[in-house]
Amino acid sequence: MAPTSFLPIDAETVGAALRSLRERPPLVQCVTNIVVAQWTANVLLATGAAPAMVDNPHEAGDFAAIASGVLINLGTPYDDTSVAMSAAVTSATASGTPWVLDPVAAGALAWRTRLALELLESGVPCIIRGNASEILALAGGTGGNGVDSIDSPEAALEVAQDLARRYRTTVAVSGAVDHLTDGERVVRIANGHPLLTRVTGVGCALGALMAGFAGVVDDGLLAAATATAALTVAAEQAALCSRGPGSFAVALLDELALLTPQSLAEATRIN
Amino acid sequence: MAPTSFLPIDAETVGAALRSLRERPPLVQCVTNIVVAQWTANVLLATGAAPAMVDNPHEAGDFAAIASGVLINLGTPYDDTSVAMSAAVTSATASGTPWVLDPVAAGALAWRTRLALELLESGVPCIIRGNASEILALAGGTGGNGVDSIDSPEAALEVAQDLARRYRTTVAVSGAVDHLTDGERVVRIANGHPLLTRVTGVGCALGALMAGFAGVVDDGLLAAATATAALTVAAEQAALCSRGPGSFAVALLDELALLTPQSLAEATRIN
Amino acid sequence: MAPTSFLPIDAETVGAALRSLRERPPLVQCVTNIVVAQWTANVLLATGAAPAMVDNPHEAGDFAAIASGVLINLGTPYDDTSVAMSAAVTSATASGTPWVLDPVAAGALAWRTRLALELLESGVPCIIRGNASEILALAGGTGGNGVDSIDSPEAALEVAQDLARRYRTTVAVSGAVDHLTDGERVVRIANGHPLLTRVTGVGCALGALMAGFAGVVDDGLLAAATATAALTVAAEQAALCSRGPGSFAVALLDELALLTPQSLAEATRIN
Repeated sequence: MAPTSFLPIDAETVGAALRSLRERPPLVQCVTNIVVAQWTANVLLATGAAPAMVDNPHEAGDFAAIASGVLINLGTPYDDTSVAMSAAVTSATASGTPWVLDPVAAGALAWRTRLALELLESGVPCIIRGNASEILALAGGTGGNGVDSIDSPEAALEVAQDLARRYRTTVAVSGAVDHLTDGERVVRIANGHPLLTRVTGVGCALGALMAGFAGVVDDGLLAAATATAALTVAAEQAALCSRGPGSFAVALLDELALLTPQSLAEATRIN
Repeated sequence: MAPTSFLPIDAETVGAALRSLRERPPLVQCVTNIVVAQWTANVLLATGAAPAMVDNPHEAGDFAAIASGVLINLGTPYDDTSVAMSAAVTSATASGTPWVLDPVAAGALAWRTRLALELLESGVPCIIRGNASEILALAGGTGGNGVDSIDSPEAALEVAQDLARRYRTTVAVSGAVDHLTDGERVVRIANGHPLLTRVTGVGCALGALMAGFAGVVDDGLLAAATATAALTVAAEQAALCSRGPGSFAVALLDELALLTPQSLAEATRIN
Repeated sequence: MAPTSFLPIDAETVGAALRSLRERPPLVQCVTNIVVAQWTANVLLATGAAPAMVDNPHEAGDFAAIASGVLINLGTPYDDTSVAMSAAVTSATASGTPWVLDPVAAGALAWRTRLALELLESGVPCIIRGNASEILALAGGTGGNGVDSIDSPEAALEVAQDLARRYRTTVAVSGAVDHLTDGERVVRIANGHPLLTRVTGVGCALGALMAGFAGVVDDGLLAAATATAALTVAAEQAALCSRGPGSFAVALLDELALLTPQSLAEATRIN
């Protein structure tokens, strides 16, 4: 795999990263929540990746060593799955598998906030993905109510940059405009549609896509940007043929499958 | 919040309750089952509420204190989640958060029947929702096979009234005609469509909607009636543009989002 | 129930088996994974069966004694649910309830491979269903990466026949052409569509359908063949009105409900 870390991150490189994923479908291990597991797997399949929801303590560690990328999502953590998360993080870090942390509702709930911080201590994620409240909470702030962010991505950007530098990772902050940073570079992606907030698990699926792209490109920021662009560009197309959140979610899967490197590059609004 | 308990329960007040939910979206904690978690969250989002599936023993209690309403659904209980249920019920009762009990398959299965009765002893639900067999089982009867009700809502009404008086709660019995009672008042809602029985989790999502409406109106019977009317009126609209259960479920989410207080009031058949 | 084991297995008998399921809807207990639980229930409901996802250790055994058929699916096994699986298998075997084993990712992951083999030692399944890699792994081979089969059904057929004879069961190997055998007879079904590989849980739902048909016909090979034909014929119809994997999954549920014994018999390509 050629190092891509010196490539510019623009619409062209995002399109090329999608081409890489289609040519070498990554195997994405998801230790995720009961709400979005099916949706996450279907988003990965539609986009062109291969999902594997291996989330028990007996197998999560071994699998993280052979997966292309790993998603750790704290949506509905239990004692059992939190042990699996630790095992997957330790194994992924040891074997060089990129992993993504999605600290769902960090800040709003004490137990999982501690769990998220423990995971960050036991291995270095390739990407941390969350809304502004979750990112602020990881950095030591207060956070929202566990569902919707009460802070804006713009307001969280400086904190996100600090967090990215502290953990030598990429931090992706979701919002109407997504803000992504590796501590030095900052990328803003202005695609999307309000219906994305009316379907559960869109952010969770985005984290899984980031783990998939991290399995095919070397640059975590490019992986996060490509996942974000793919999902939000597909959302814009899906909204055109939707009557509401039900038909939108269905069309979103169709549009992810219909995306091409070229159509993605043409539609991505990135700077 | 103005007490609404003396308002009549009719199509107008049902429409007004939907307006309340849209204006102040309730945060609905769901301790529910692995089968319907995504669907439940999407039904809440489509209707205008904010779902939060906080179902582990470490966090369920704390969250119930800040949620607008709590759903306890016994679809797939485990040791872990049953502890979370107890914690949520205790905390909700202590902090005045209305909670809804959906005793899925009570009567058919001994362990969860006992669990449901224990939950009823440890706190007073705002609403108990089930099919006729489940309601009869909670009241001491025998119950069905855990999937479909073998009894009619009409036949269960007297028992439902007794149960409502015993626990000072509202009891909602699902069926072709839904029967709801707080022990004194009885409300019947005659909307719906047979396709509702061909999609899993419709009843479970109804319980979650009840918890949402209980977070915005004071009267448990009105909350239960509005949730029932919203789901069954949307189902009638959805059936008009469906080829089968797959497209029906998708259209149901669309129609829940398209409902307005006025369209709901006009279509609700209530007495 | 008349013994059907001497009937030929052809398009006509497959159509007749669907008629049996529609006339006497089986109650299908699913001990399955968090990814596909909703989808599996909806596939069963669309086809005409009644799902019951009873998967905790306290109740799984009792329920298996009254269910028409039981699915044991190893997609996301936990300590808790693996105990439930053992209880269900023991009870189903003791009470004569047919059960289906779907050893998801056997071979790729050590813990669940051992679990699958232990389940096979504690009771005789009516049907074992998997892709070629999983079937080879159960027979002592190596297996794939836990997601996609690296072997073809044709290459696995001889091993499948051995496995079927060893456990006196039916073995169904999924692929572009499905290969099914009870050790003596071999059935090939050539329906299907590539979009089936772009939706998660199609194979898992197929196992559940097999458990449903095993509850209404005596012949495990006929049950497996009918489930396979129903799902793959419906998939061909669904693909005609799909733009991608999202709309395909929705249409698949519609088409399963629209299938008739006659339309199934006419479209099934079996030999």
